[in-house]
Amino acid sequence: MATFELHARLAADTLLIRDLPLSRLLLMNDARFPWCILVPARDGLRELYELTPADAALLHEEIRRVSLALAACGHVDKLNVAALGNQVPQLHIHVIARRYDDAAWPQPVWGSGPAQPYDEAAAHRLLTALRAALEPH
Amino acid sequence: MATFELHARLAADTLLIRDLPLSRLLLMNDARFPWCILVPARDGLRELYELTPADAALLHEEIRRVSLALAACGHVDKLNVAALGNQVPQLHIHVIARRYDDAAWPQPVWGSGPAQPYDEAAAHRLLTALRAALEPH
Repeated sequence: MATFELHARLAADTLLIRDLPLSRLLLMNDARFPWCILVPARDGLRELYELTPADAALLHEEIRRVSLALAACGHVDKLNVAALGNQVPQLHIHVIARRYDDAAWPQPVWGSGPAQPYDEAAAHRLLTALRAALEPH
Repeated sequence: MATFELHARLAADTLLIRDLPLSRLLLMNDARFPWCILVPARDGLRELYELTPADAALLHEEIRRVSLALAACGHVDKLNVAALGNQVPQLHIHVIARRYDDAAWPQPVWGSGPAQPYDEAAAHRLLTALRAALEPH
């Protein structure tokens, strides 16, 4: 069985939503943007192109599920999907719900200022809503 | 037969590399970063999750081919792959070769200042090298 360990920086910056068939699904702890991160649970991956075709198909399906879950939990004008990895080398894919009136629009969210952590009640509400929107699978 | 028309802003900002099975492959006309853009030749797409599973598999293979071609044409420390679409709604995927010493590292390239267009000779060299690295397919 593969050992999979989440990078410490990702663990520190996020809240756990749940595990999906390929990826651990995280919520970035930044109340300015509904911002999910998918981390394929495969050791040693850095680049998107390193995924096998089978895992790439799983990832596409998980991006679709997360996109629809975000849309079910609030208004979304545009999704931003990205694998950058300039700060954290472990392969991870951002799926960010953007709104025309959000704090960074139309710029990307990276570099848009410090994260604003959720308060406990808001985090609980959004995690519960996202988990419900992801069911049943 | 589907009609496919490249968005005018993408056409203005890029040079044509070639068509791949799914996507038109473009080179962003910015000599600061080796920066390709894949535009799936399907009308009306805005979001990555709208791709069919078959087209998503083609796209993954094209991202892989473009990633390896970029690495064959110069040193690459990290790839940045992203579908944002905040400025241009037509679905397009950035595949950007990043270096630890490039003009924006470790920040994303978007918002890093004005593009520096290639001179004619440099554009010709890179387009020729990328086309060669993408063969044979």
